[in-house]
Amino acid sequence: MDSLPYLDQLIERFRAFPGVGEKSARRMAFFLLQQPTPWVESLAEILRGAREHIHPCPICGALTDRDPCPLCSDPGRRSELLCVVETPEDCIALEQSGVFRGRYHVLGGRVSPLEGEQIPPERLDALRQRIQDGGIGEVILAMNPRVEGDLTAFTVQESLAGLPVKLSRLACGLPVGGSIGFADRVTLHVAMEARQPFSSEEI
Amino acid sequence: MDSLPYLDQLIERFRAFPGVGEKSARRMAFFLLQQPTPWVESLAEILRGAREHIHPCPICGALTDRDPCPLCSDPGRRSELLCVVETPEDCIALEQSGVFRGRYHVLGGRVSPLEGEQIPPERLDALRQRIQDGGIGEVILAMNPRVEGDLTAFTVQESLAGLPVKLSRLACGLPVGGSIGFADRVTLHVAMEARQPFSSEEI
Repeated sequence: MDSLPYLDQLIERFRAFPGVGEKSARRMAFFLLQQPTPWVESLAEILRGAREHIHPCPICGALTDRDPCPLCSDPGRRSELLCVVETPEDCIALEQSGVFRGRYHVLGGRVSPLEGEQIPPERLDALRQRIQDGGIGEVILAMNPRVEGDLTAFTVQESLAGLPVKLSRLACGLPVGGSIGFADRVTLHVAMEARQPFSSEEI
Repeated sequence: MDSLPYLDQLIERFRAFPGVGEKSARRMAFFLLQQPTPWVESLAEILRGAREHIHPCPICGALTDRDPCPLCSDPGRRSELLCVVETPEDCIALEQSGVFRGRYHVLGGRVSPLEGEQIPPERLDALRQRIQDGGIGEVILAMNPRVEGDLTAFTVQESLAGLPVKLSRLACGLPVGGSIGFADRVTLHVAMEARQPFSSEEI
């Protein structure tokens, strides 16, 4: 059977997305071909529009469609708390959880010697500058709880050496709602080491 | 955080694809936003082009970008063998395997009472007509080996009642390269019932 260039290209493009393999890409392509033409037209427009209008905020680095972003311009957020994350995606995950009401600083990278990744130096400089400009009391390192996250946190810590700011990091332990039986050994070890004083009166 | 309309739309659209959940859709959207603009532009073009140029062949129903499709117009394929499949995707899977060198008939649907699905009547009529036009000696029912596939095969069989044509169906049994230990009970049962005479001389 002759190949269909458009179909092959479509499958190849879908395969480029993270977590999409050969068969998933094919299923997605066939799904697309079964959609009404206006649906496909509007999807093409959304792709273009998203790429054109969404960009990193010049201050915090989170994704936005205006300058500065709503996170940086919201007067209701606590300016003395700065949460440092690896990616804009982490920033959205934290926002959706609603657990943080301060400001953000997106590194836009992580330290991974094996994959040759580094934090963009200009983002570290910008972080240092933001702290030097004053008004920030605590920097929360919200890195992912794995080796690359640890290395990233150490690197940020080093680059902030000498600055009068408190550094903290997200707690590690058992995921809430999970079960001990399914927790991995490392998580259990961390949960044991970082155990908290318990008093029934606090509940 | 204010939502980003383009990002939300992008995630919503990716979620519509089969096998893509909330988190996968978000990962895909962030991946897209990190690609160079020309990559996104060309993806948008490929989506449009695929939807515009690829359509079902008017004869067999397989996907094609010309009329009739290369499968129907190839003089090297055996015209007396007709393989009936549920979807254009099945057709491509069989072609990629290279195990069949006859003609196809895509039903474009399957019988599933639970999901209210039926074979489009015009595709059954077209199948009947192709056989009545003569030259077809055997119809191979290549339905999926599950309840819906069985019902679909029965329905096709009924609609062809009285036509002078041999009907066959793909064999079921152990998948080659699999292991008996991992096969499910039903597959083992089928493999046992449909066991074949064995002679070392044949090998």
